Formats: sequence, structure tokens, C-alpha cells
Amino acid sequence: MATRPGAQGCGFQDARAKAGLAMQERSCALVVIGNEILSGKIHDTNTYFAARELRAIGVALKRIVVVPDELEAIAEEVRYCSQRFDFVITSGGVGPTHDDITVAGVAAALHRPVVIHPQLEALIREHFGDRPNKAGLKMAEVPQGAVLIEGGPMIFPTVQIENIYMLPGIPQLFEGKLAALKSRFASDPYFMHAIYTSAGEGRIAALLDACLERFPKLLLGSYPRIGDAEYRVKVTLESKDRAYVDDAFAYLLELLPADVVVKTE
Amino acid sequence: MATRPGAQGCGFQDARAKAGLAMQERSCALVVIGNEILSGKIHDTNTYFAARELRAIGVALKRIVVVPDELEAIAEEVRYCSQRFDFVITSGGVGPTHDDITVAGVAAALHRPVVIHPQLEALIREHFGDRPNKAGLKMAEVPQGAVLIEGGPMIFPTVQIENIYMLPGIPQLFEGKLAALKSRFASDPYFMHAIYTSAGEGRIAALLDACLERFPKLLLGSYPRIGDAEYRVKVTLESKDRAYVDDAFAYLLELLPADVVVKTE
Repeated sequence: MATRPGAQGCGFQDARAKAGLAMQERSCALVVIGNEILSGKIHDTNTYFAARELRAIGVALKRIVVVPDELEAIAEEVRYCSQRFDFVITSGGVGPTHDDITVAGVAAALHRPVVIHPQLEALIREHFGDRPNKAGLKMAEVPQGAVLIEGGPMIFPTVQIENIYMLPGIPQLFEGKLAALKSRFASDPYFMHAIYTSAGEGRIAALLDACLERFPKLLLGSYPRIGDAEYRVKVTLESKDRAYVDDAFAYLLELLPADVVVKTE
Repeated sequence: MATRPGAQGCGFQDARAKAGLAMQERSCALVVIGNEILSGKIHDTNTYFAARELRAIGVALKRIVVVPDELEAIAEEVRYCSQRFDFVITSGGVGPTHDDITVAGVAAALHRPVVIHPQLEALIREHFGDRPNKAGLKMAEVPQGAVLIEGGPMIFPTVQIENIYMLPGIPQLFEGKLAALKSRFASDPYFMHAIYTSAGEGRIAALLDACLERFPKLLLGSYPRIGDAEYRVKVTLESKDRAYVDDAFAYLLELLPADVVVKTE
């Protein structure tokens, strides 16, 4: 074991593991609101960005859902996720036009009315002058009880209600807002090893099973690739417990015939 | 009206509209199974590919969901979608390893047992010789009552059960299989116009509302963009009724101040 590289962490200390404490697990769901994604007009990149950012801070993203710009679809999905996961991030549908109904959908999810937030109204009056139009004032609407979080791009803050954070869908804004928010989601980090094999999945499947039998809490992934000259399968081993994943990595490497292991990480 | 370009169709005849028949609407959901997407290891491209392909053949994609490699999560989501939409396409989780549990999840969704399909078993025996290992035989498993659909890449057929089509997650295979299947999903086409404006959403929102009031069945989207020198908002108008969308397009163009319209499609 001493000669093997340690699992790759994510820039966090694994003090909790060293202290023998249970790893902290925080779960998240992403709800993307947007007909433009469902109709193929836009290639969503927010979910991939968020998946990587969340993983890097130890958050377990458990669900991504894209729903249309329809009140009941938004409300049902947000309610489902809010009840099951530690927090929910929404993307899109927060502008001033008819198809921006995320605020109404989230409010309906929580059985709350939509109200004008005085601080947002003041911001908008500052921006539009004393007489903002109806569309401008729509941007001041929030589910009753929402709080505002400053930070990130735009002077416009992020609206939070209960465990739900409503982010804009435009990628530059979504990314900036998430980067500004993420420290409040951070959890114990994941540690990962990877093994690349020249053998196909059919040949290594039983060995992966044996590894899981010995290390049942291991997060073990097997990802075949077509047309890559270097390897056929990438096997990933992950855990929040660094020693556990190091041991599982060593065990699986012993199980695998040496000639099928192309490289490890 | 005569001088305006007609709405862009999708290569289909709009004979149904000409005959005054109601447009055919078929709905679809995509269920992506994959921890690798939720953990940000892989940037899913199958959903964007499918969204465009389905739109081009007139199918209304109403929901995209990414769930983890967990039996209950797959079963619950597939059951939900199967009951609400005309058809369901799954992506991923159909290989021979421990994390490939889509067949079991779909079977659980429909309260059916998993069985060995004799035709798949014969295929696998042909491929592996007379003594396929356990992992090889796993590839012959299907929900009881499933049918096989030939075509596309790989000699391995697509497994269908009720309104659910189980596709492989590897992009080359997913795309080839979907292309081979899609004629069975085809519906009446959508027709689309687009208007690009130099005005922001706040300024045009009330005009979009007015257009929707006159054309309540219009699919009207408003997509702001940051950092594009040419325009600030792309407005899309769609319908399965070509005359309807042409009329709405003409109406909205009259409502918009001429100097904010950058270009139209």
C-alpha cells in the first residue's frame, strides 16, 4: 500500500476521516426549467457545470430534471426534490417575460403566495427609474418568505426559499451565481481512483462484483468506451473515506490480471 | 402576409393542416441512467441529440431526467413517465456490470420479473461461444414480455417493453439506435419563426403578452443572450399549424417597433 499513490482528493482536508467520524453526506437536485432545452434549441451546459462543481465540494447530486415552462410541472418537481434532498437548485425561468414562471412554480410547490419583495422592488426602481413597467416589476416577485443572497454577477441577488435556490438560466449568470453560493453547500470531499483496462466489461464484471462484495460501500463505476486506442473500460472507485478507497483500489488491482491494466490514477 | 417568408418546417408535408384536421401531438420523456453524469465525470450529449431529433420529427419532448444507478430511482421515474407520456426512451445502464441495472429498474417499474430472452441468449452464445460467463448472460436479460427491435449499430437489438425503449448510453450507440428507431415516433411537424431583437426582454415583454392573447395556442419563447453584439433577445414562435404561426409572426412583427427587429427567420 505504501508505494501506491493516494486517492485524489478535492482540495479539502480529510480530518473527519482521520478522526474516525462518519462522513458527511449532503444531497442535491437540479431542476432546469426550459422549453428551449426540451425542444433542442439550446444545449444545456449548466447541469454539467453544476455536476462538476458540486462533486468537487463533496455534494452528492442525485437528480437532474428538465421540465417545460409549465406551472404544474415545475411545482410538482420542485416539491418532490425539496422534500427528498438537502437542497435544490433551479436553473432558468426567472426573467420578465410570459415564459418565466419559475417563481410562481416554486411558490406553488411550497403552497405559498407570490409577493413583491420590497428590496427587489427598490433595486428595480433604481434601475428603471421611478416608473418600472409591469415586466420590470415582475422581477421583484418572490415566493412569500424568500430571502435574498448577494454575490456573483449582476447586482440582482439570488432568491432562496427554504432549501431551494433559484438561479438564472443564462450560462454566464448561472455559473457566476453558483460559484458565489457554493461554499454554503460544501461537504466532506470524495476521493477517487481510476483503473483503465484493455479488457472489456464482460471480462472484468465478476472481478468488480468481488471487489464490491469486500467493499460494499464503495462507489464503483464502469465506463466502456468505443474507438479509444488506449483502453476499453475506465473503472472509477470513490469514497468519502480515503483509507477505504485506497484499500479497495489495492484489492481490485490484485484481482485484475496485470496485463489488462493500462494505467491507473 | 404574402411577402413574408413562410414558417420553417421540418421536411414534412403539412397536409393535415391543409385538410383542417387536428394536429397530432405525441409526447416523450427521456430517462438517463448514470452516476457518471450526476458526478460530472461525463458530459451527457445524448439528451441534446435526442431533443433535436425528436423535435425534427414533431415529437414533444416533455421531460428529461437523470437518475443514479439505483433500482428504486429508475423504477419510480420510468413508471411515472410511462404512465404520462406516449413513449419513454432510456439511455444507459444496459451493459454487463454491477452498475447496469436499467433492465431490472424498468421491470420493477412495470411490476414484471426479469427473464432471459431466448433470442438474446442465442446471440450471446454465438458471440461468446457455448459457455458465456455470468456477465455475458446478463446481457440476455429483459423485462418479461419485452420485444426486440433490429436495426442500428451493433447486432444487439433494442429492447422494447410497452411504451419504453431501452437504449445504450455510449453516444455512438445511442445515436445510431435512435436514428434507426425514430420513424416509429414521427408525428406532425412543428413550424417555426424567429425574431431577433436589439431590445431587452423588459421592453418587449408586454408585446409578447399581447401576441399570446391573440394567439393563445402559440408556442412562444423568449431567449435573452449576454455578450452577443448582434442581438439581445431571440423570440421563437412555433406551432404545428403553419398558417397559425405565420399569422402570429406577422402580428408580432407589427407590434414590435421596427427599429428593434434585427433579423427574422
